[in-house]
Amino acid sequence: MILKDTIVALATSSGVGAIAVIRLSGPDAIALADACFQSIKENKALVKQKSHTLHLGHFVNNKRVIDQVLISVFKNPHSYTGEDTIEISCHGSMYIQQEIIQVLLQKGARMADAGEFTLRAFINGKLDLSQAEAVADLISSDSEASHQVAMQQMRGGFSNEIQYLRDELINFASLIELELDFAEEDVEFADRGEFKKLIAKIKIVLKRLIDSFAVGNVIKNGIPVAIVGEPNVGKSTLLNALLNEERAIVSDIAGTTRDTIEDEMIIDGVAYRFIDTAGIRETKDVVENIGIQKTFEKITQAQVVIYLFDVTQYKVQSTKYKVELESIKNKYPQKQLIILGNKADRVLEEVLNNLKLEIPELITISAKSKDGIEKLTDELTKMVNIGALNNQDTIVTNSRHYDALLKALNEINKIDEAIINHISSDLMAIDIREALYFFGLITGEVTNDELLGNIFANFCIGK
Amino acid sequence: MILKDTIVALATSSGVGAIAVIRLSGPDAIALADACFQSIKENKALVKQKSHTLHLGHFVNNKRVIDQVLISVFKNPHSYTGEDTIEISCHGSMYIQQEIIQVLLQKGARMADAGEFTLRAFINGKLDLSQAEAVADLISSDSEASHQVAMQQMRGGFSNEIQYLRDELINFASLIELELDFAEEDVEFADRGEFKKLIAKIKIVLKRLIDSFAVGNVIKNGIPVAIVGEPNVGKSTLLNALLNEERAIVSDIAGTTRDTIEDEMIIDGVAYRFIDTAGIRETKDVVENIGIQKTFEKITQAQVVIYLFDVTQYKVQSTKYKVELESIKNKYPQKQLIILGNKADRVLEEVLNNLKLEIPELITISAKSKDGIEKLTDELTKMVNIGALNNQDTIVTNSRHYDALLKALNEINKIDEAIINHISSDLMAIDIREALYFFGLITGEVTNDELLGNIFANFCIGK
Repeated sequence: MILKDTIVALATSSGVGAIAVIRLSGPDAIALADACFQSIKENKALVKQKSHTLHLGHFVNNKRVIDQVLISVFKNPHSYTGEDTIEISCHGSMYIQQEIIQVLLQKGARMADAGEFTLRAFINGKLDLSQAEAVADLISSDSEASHQVAMQQMRGGFSNEIQYLRDELINFASLIELELDFAEEDVEFADRGEFKKLIAKIKIVLKRLIDSFAVGNVIKNGIPVAIVGEPNVGKSTLLNALLNEERAIVSDIAGTTRDTIEDEMIIDGVAYRFIDTAGIRETKDVVENIGIQKTFEKITQAQVVIYLFDVTQYKVQSTKYKVELESIKNKYPQKQLIILGNKADRVLEEVLNNLKLEIPELITISAKSKDGIEKLTDELTKMVNIGALNNQDTIVTNSRHYDALLKALNEINKIDEAIINHISSDLMAIDIREALYFFGLITGEVTNDELLGNIFANFCIGK
Repeated sequence: MILKDTIVALATSSGVGAIAVIRLSGPDAIALADACFQSIKENKALVKQKSHTLHLGHFVNNKRVIDQVLISVFKNPHSYTGEDTIEISCHGSMYIQQEIIQVLLQKGARMADAGEFTLRAFINGKLDLSQAEAVADLISSDSEASHQVAMQQMRGGFSNEIQYLRDELINFASLIELELDFAEEDVEFADRGEFKKLIAKIKIVLKRLIDSFAVGNVIKNGIPVAIVGEPNVGKSTLLNALLNEERAIVSDIAGTTRDTIEDEMIIDGVAYRFIDTAGIRETKDVVENIGIQKTFEKITQAQVVIYLFDVTQYKVQSTKYKVELESIKNKYPQKQLIILGNKADRVLEEVLNNLKLEIPELITISAKSKDGIEKLTDELTKMVNIGALNNQDTIVTNSRHYDALLKALNEINKIDEAIINHISSDLMAIDIREALYFFGLITGEVTNDELLGNIFANFCIGK
């Protein structure tokens, strides 16, 4: 890791705007800015200014004024990167943005790599690795829920928990390692009873974090909801009502929706990915059979299944509907199921009341007139809120963290067994070191250039 | 003009970036920001901070942390708008940008109109009107030349010149008005000789400024260059060589380029709009005749005309070429003309040398192999540099200013005649007031809501 050079990049979204911000970080940041800066009134040198101050002036190159700029000075270690940092707020013309960056490159700055400012913040100890990763999640967050978990992770909620477990484990590890030094004397410095308690506590936390990934992952990527039902019961119309636009092909001919159409929408701050399926009607049509197979695949991927039927057809089809519903309930007992009766505007109130006696959890709607859509979205929101989201519990959203947690749990289980089976300290020490390694991978105490390269390559340039 | 409220808008380009900046300006700007700000360490109130300082903290709403932000404090009158101003630098997620603006709107800020920050800067006397207009030009500048003229105008070059003339004219005006008070005594407070000199001076400056608009307009919109010549001499190939990409249809069949294709490129910091024409060959083909008419239209619009011919055809076609060249020279004596011999790689050096004896200003190229293209671009650059661009002279680029200058000159001419014809002071005073009015329109001493509305409607929101 070379931190001796000074990097520059556009920090704001590329394109024309009222203003743009160019960020410069590294040992020469302030000197480089000074070489191009002429203050408006007195002849101010930026290097003599206090940290966290703003200075109006001209950005000049060889006496040519490129722009009137406002310069922010941050002195190390009190900056985002922990280095001397300059932010140049200029007029948001593409030409000016390019010129300013060009001049700084000519004067000796280097173009920043993707995520390099945050990488430097990590290397300089301003953020741990999981916090650094949360910065990228925060920037790409597009819903209240994804924003909330990214924010919590950036503020260190997750790291703190891992760090606490790691510290306690290190404590015991040092006692176990001490036993190795006195191996011939067969002493136990580490109280096995206390150690067993700690391991049990770590296991509970790890399992909770691992379980939270199911929620964390859907928050980050949207909650998949499969809409399943007979052809022509109004799946596409429902999807359109939800999306409030005509994405799916809607027609009156049974079986017209042969492919699945996915779309995302945000309801009460949570992203959902709605999956329109081809239904599960028995058929001899080859194309449609492929569609039905796809339906089952989609149900497998979904967290929530909406079973949709046509209330006007219920009298005739009730046996069939019941068979299908039972098959979904039996095949996917862990999926959250919503039973939805469509076309409720076409039958008498009496018929609906009888139906509700038969299926107490039934929600009746009219997708066409959008009546009852709110009952459905309320139900969806309720289902999600049942989970970990509403607690202040830490939620794991990053698959790298999930992977490290699984591996750490595996090592912790080995230690647990080792204690039960009175395995010797030297073998146990190996498992503890492994567990510590996986904890360290999450927070960045353990790291290498390849890992960092992979993580920061996903950042945008300028962050 | 209501300036009592506090306005908010995104100041950076919309879209996802590492950071985004939200600007808040008005009497409640600092209090509004304080209501949402929690400093990281101590409990800092922004209202107690000095102007031009930066503060790290959290942007919160009802105890919910929306983002970690960096807040810039600017106290009136030391800000862009001249009002209390806050800039919030947040993570560049669309969700966060929207949330922060939403919260500030809920707390009492109003969404800024297009250009409203700059409008306030004008109203508060931080910029005159022509400088305010230059801000919009600066943001949209995409070449060195357009950037240079916008920068000069923003720094007040143009305003200063107008202001100086206006002040001198006001001086005389007050003396003339004084004469009106003593009309019965028939005295002349204003020295008619000196006044005549001033009017002559104003006329020279106005004429120079009006003339500069021709240059200013092309700098702002690109210099139109028509490429004219026989079909099949390689006009499209030349255009492609210049554009370095295959925009025009190139073929070997004479007369294939029937429509004009326009494209812009920047050579040595100046934007050119190249216009490919259908040539001026005599023809009975109706479609092609329309093309030839268009060619003449295009020549009329162009500032520079490139006459292109095929050196391999010169022996056979020389009479025809000469006729065409003469017709262009006679028809458009004021256009800058470049005579270009193409396909120079297909004839002997000797032939080229003879040609150059016959046409001393000839430039020979091979559009296909791109030989000599640089000689052409050098010639173009030279032609532009002959004009006002390279001087430090003020250049008018704004058609509103051009219009006001023309009207001012008209009034000045009337005053000139009035002096010559010894017209009475009261009539002369009317013309002087009119001239002052048009000067004032440029710098904004004279203004009204409609004029300001028209000007600032063209700005982006956030500026």
